[in-house]
Amino acid sequence: MHINVDTKPVTPNTYDSKKKRLVETIDRLYHRDARGPLQKMLARIHPADLAAILDALPPEHVVDIFHALGDKEMAAEVFSQMTPSLRTRVMTESSASQLASLLERLPPDDLADLIGDLPEDQRAELMALLGRDSKSEVESLLKYDPNSAGGIMTTDIFSLPHSLTVEQAIENIRGREAVEMVFYLYLTDEDGRLVGVVSLRQLLLSRPSTVLHNIMNRRVMSVATDADQTTVALLVDKYRLLAVPVVDADNILVGMVTVDDVIDVIEEETTRDMLKMAGTSESETLTHSAFKIAWIRLPWLLAAFVGGLAATGVVGAYHEILAEVLVLSAFLPVVMGMAGNVGVQSATVAVRGLATGAIDVRDTVPIVFKELRVGLLLGCFYGVILGIYGYFMHNSLALGEVVGLTILGNMTGAALLAVLLPMMFQRIKVDPAVATGPFVTTAIDILGVLNYFVIATWIFKL
Amino acid sequence: MHINVDTKPVTPNTYDSKKKRLVETIDRLYHRDARGPLQKMLARIHPADLAAILDALPPEHVVDIFHALGDKEMAAEVFSQMTPSLRTRVMTESSASQLASLLERLPPDDLADLIGDLPEDQRAELMALLGRDSKSEVESLLKYDPNSAGGIMTTDIFSLPHSLTVEQAIENIRGREAVEMVFYLYLTDEDGRLVGVVSLRQLLLSRPSTVLHNIMNRRVMSVATDADQTTVALLVDKYRLLAVPVVDADNILVGMVTVDDVIDVIEEETTRDMLKMAGTSESETLTHSAFKIAWIRLPWLLAAFVGGLAATGVVGAYHEILAEVLVLSAFLPVVMGMAGNVGVQSATVAVRGLATGAIDVRDTVPIVFKELRVGLLLGCFYGVILGIYGYFMHNSLALGEVVGLTILGNMTGAALLAVLLPMMFQRIKVDPAVATGPFVTTAIDILGVLNYFVIATWIFKL
Repeated sequence: MHINVDTKPVTPNTYDSKKKRLVETIDRLYHRDARGPLQKMLARIHPADLAAILDALPPEHVVDIFHALGDKEMAAEVFSQMTPSLRTRVMTESSASQLASLLERLPPDDLADLIGDLPEDQRAELMALLGRDSKSEVESLLKYDPNSAGGIMTTDIFSLPHSLTVEQAIENIRGREAVEMVFYLYLTDEDGRLVGVVSLRQLLLSRPSTVLHNIMNRRVMSVATDADQTTVALLVDKYRLLAVPVVDADNILVGMVTVDDVIDVIEEETTRDMLKMAGTSESETLTHSAFKIAWIRLPWLLAAFVGGLAATGVVGAYHEILAEVLVLSAFLPVVMGMAGNVGVQSATVAVRGLATGAIDVRDTVPIVFKELRVGLLLGCFYGVILGIYGYFMHNSLALGEVVGLTILGNMTGAALLAVLLPMMFQRIKVDPAVATGPFVTTAIDILGVLNYFVIATWIFKL
Repeated sequence: MHINVDTKPVTPNTYDSKKKRLVETIDRLYHRDARGPLQKMLARIHPADLAAILDALPPEHVVDIFHALGDKEMAAEVFSQMTPSLRTRVMTESSASQLASLLERLPPDDLADLIGDLPEDQRAELMALLGRDSKSEVESLLKYDPNSAGGIMTTDIFSLPHSLTVEQAIENIRGREAVEMVFYLYLTDEDGRLVGVVSLRQLLLSRPSTVLHNIMNRRVMSVATDADQTTVALLVDKYRLLAVPVVDADNILVGMVTVDDVIDVIEEETTRDMLKMAGTSESETLTHSAFKIAWIRLPWLLAAFVGGLAATGVVGAYHEILAEVLVLSAFLPVVMGMAGNVGVQSATVAVRGLATGAIDVRDTVPIVFKELRVGLLLGCFYGVILGIYGYFMHNSLALGEVVGLTILGNMTGAALLAVLLPMMFQRIKVDPAVATGPFVTTAIDILGVLNYFVIATWIFKL
C-alpha cells in the first residue's frame, strides 16, 4: 500500500466528466507530439486514475502514452492498477528494456502475482528480464500457496534491529522512501526473529537516545506463512489492524499483509462464494470467450440436468393419476417454484451468515429449528391460499387439499434442507457455498415433485 | 479504530481451545468471588476476544463479570464489540450510573449507531443519561443518513491548526491518548476548514521549528457528509487510503471514516445484495423471531406466487395438447429447472460484476451478446442431449424435437433476460440485485412454460 498524497485524486462527484476531459486532452497532446506537456500532465494524475484513463484511450496509442510517463516509480504503480487486458497489452508491446525497468520497480508481491498468473513459457521469458535479487525474491514468493498469507504478503517490509535507538530508527526511516507504508515498525533480533513492534507515534514521543528494545511492545500479533488468507482477513477485521506481520516456522519475519490486501481478499472470497452458490466456478471471468465460459458452467448444470431427468422420471411414474386428474400438471410450476424460492432464501441466509460469522456452526440446532418454523409459517400461508384457489378454480375439494398440503410440505422441507445442508457441509469442512448451488435446488425439485404425487395419489385414491 | 497493542490477541490456531480455557477460568474465579484475580485476568484479554468470551459465559453472570472490568475505557471497547443480544442484556441489567459511565466512553459514532437503532422511548431514556456534550454530538450525528459518510464517520478526529510548528504538533499528540488512530494529521484554518494533511512520518522527519503549513500536503482528498457509504468505500479501496476526512458544505472538517469502517460497509453492502438477490430483505437478522422473519420474506415470495399461478394458467390453457400428449407434463420439471439454473448463473455474474466494478454498464451491448452466446452454446448442448433422451425414451421424434428446441430456447432466453435486466436496472439507477430476485426467476418460469407449449402445439399439430 502506497499512500501517495503527492498526486491529486479525483473527487467522486466530478469523476466521470473530469475523466472524459483528461482522456481528450491526453489524446490531443499525443497527436500534436507535445511530449513535454504530455509528460507533465500525466505526472499530475493519481496512479489509480491514470490506470482508468489509459483504459479509455485508443488502444493503438495507449502503450506509447504510458511510456511517456517520466517517473518510472509512478509507471510501476499505474501498471499495478491496470486492468488485466491493458496490462497484457503493455507487456506485449513494450521493448524488453522498457519491460525490465517496469518489472524491477513493481512491489515483489505484485510481481509474483503477475508472473504466477502467466503460462509456463511466458513466465520463463519474464523471469529472464529480472535482476538476480528480484528473481530469487519472486521465486521464493511463488513457492507459497496463492491463497495463503505467504501468497498475499509483501516482502517490502520495514523492520529494524531492536537494539537501535529512537534516533537511529528515525535516520533509517529517512533513508527508506520507497518502502510500503510505515506506521508500525517491526523489530527483530540478531537472527531476524520478530520480537516486538513500535508505532510511529511512540517513536515521535520518545527521547532520541532511548533504545527501541525498551519501548517496544513484545506482544506483537503475527501469522504464519501458510495461514489461510481468509484467516488473515478475519484477524485483521476482528482486531482492526492496519497490517499483520508474517513469520516463517522459526518466527523469522518474512513479510506483512496490509489492510488493503485484506479488502481484496474479502471481495475475492465473496465473489467466489456467490459464483459457487449460483452454480458456476470461481475461475469464470469476463475476459474469457463465450466458449470458455460455457465450458466452465457446463458441468455445474449437469447436476441440475440429471436431477431434472429424475424429476421427469417421477412424473412419468405417476402418469396414471396424471391422466385421471390432468389438472395436476397445471400446478407443477407453482408447486416447484415456491419451494425453490423459499429454499434460496434460507440457503443464502445460512451461507452468508456462516461466511461473515453471524452464524456459528455450534448453533446448528436452534438455527435449523428456526428456519423450520419460518418454512412452516410461510408454507401455511401460501398453502391455504393455493388450496382455496385450487378448490374454487376447479371446483374440487380434493385438488385444493392436494395443492395446499403439497405447498405446505414443500416449503417447509425446502427451508429445512436449504439451511441444514450448508451447516452440515461447514461441519465437515466443505465449503457451504457449494451446497447451495444446483445441488440443493435439484434435491428440492425432485423431492417436491415426489411429495406432490404421493399426496395426490393418497387423496384422490381415498 | 483503536490499535490496541497492549493486550494480547489470541492467535487463530489456538483460538478455540484457549477461549474455552479462559471461559472456564473466568467462571471459576467469579464463583470463588475472587474479584482481584478476576479483574487482573480480564484486563489481560484483548477487547475483541473478551467480547466473544463473555458471549460464551453463563448468561446470568455475564453482566456482573463484565462490570468487574476495572478499566472503564476497555469496558467501552468490549461493549462496542459485543453481539447485539449481549449488548442488550448489558443495557437492561446495568444500573443507570454504570450505563452512563459506559456510554460516555463509547466513540461518538458507535454511540450514535447504538442509540439510532433503539425504539423511540428507549432512545430518550439513554439520551437522558448522557452529558451535555455527548448528547449534542449524538444528536448531530443522528441527523445524517445512516448509509452516508456522515452516518458512518467518527467525530473523534485528530486535527490541528496549520499555523502550528512541528514541535507544537508533537506536544499535542502527546496530550491526546484516547483519540482514534493517528497516522494522518489533518490541518485546518482559523474557521475549521480542511486545508491540508501531514503524515506522522513527515512530522518525524521534519525539524521541530518548521511550521506545518510549509510541509503539509494541500491536495487532501475528502468526502462530503452526504456522500453515499458505497462511494466512500470505493474511494478508500481505489486510492488505498487508511482514512478519509469528512467535510460539510463549507469544507469544515467534521469527522473521518477509517478503513475498518469501510470493511464493515463492504461486508454490509454485500450481505444486502445477496439477500436481495435471494428475494428477502436486508432487514432480516437472526435475532428476529420466526414470525418476524416469515413476515419479512412473505411479500418477496408473493411475486413468485403470482408468477407461479400465471404459469399454472399457461399450462391450463394448453390442456388439450396436454391430454393428447400426456408425457409433455413429465418434461415440465427439467424444462423449467434448466432455464432457472442458467438464469441464476448469468444474473449472479452480472450483479456481482456491477457491484465490484468488474462490469461497466457502458459495456452492456458486448456483455449481453456474450451471455447470449453462452446461453446458446449451453442450450445447444443440453437441448441435443434432452432431445435424444426424449426421442429414445418415448420413441417419438416429435417429442424429442419439442423438448430439445424448448431447452435451447429457454436456456438462451434465460441467460439473455438474466443479464439484460440487471444491466437495465443499473442504467435507470435501480439496485440490480433486486432484479435477480424472484422477479427474474418468475419471468423465466412463465416464459419458459409458454415457450414449451407453443413449440409443442406447433410441432404436434404439423
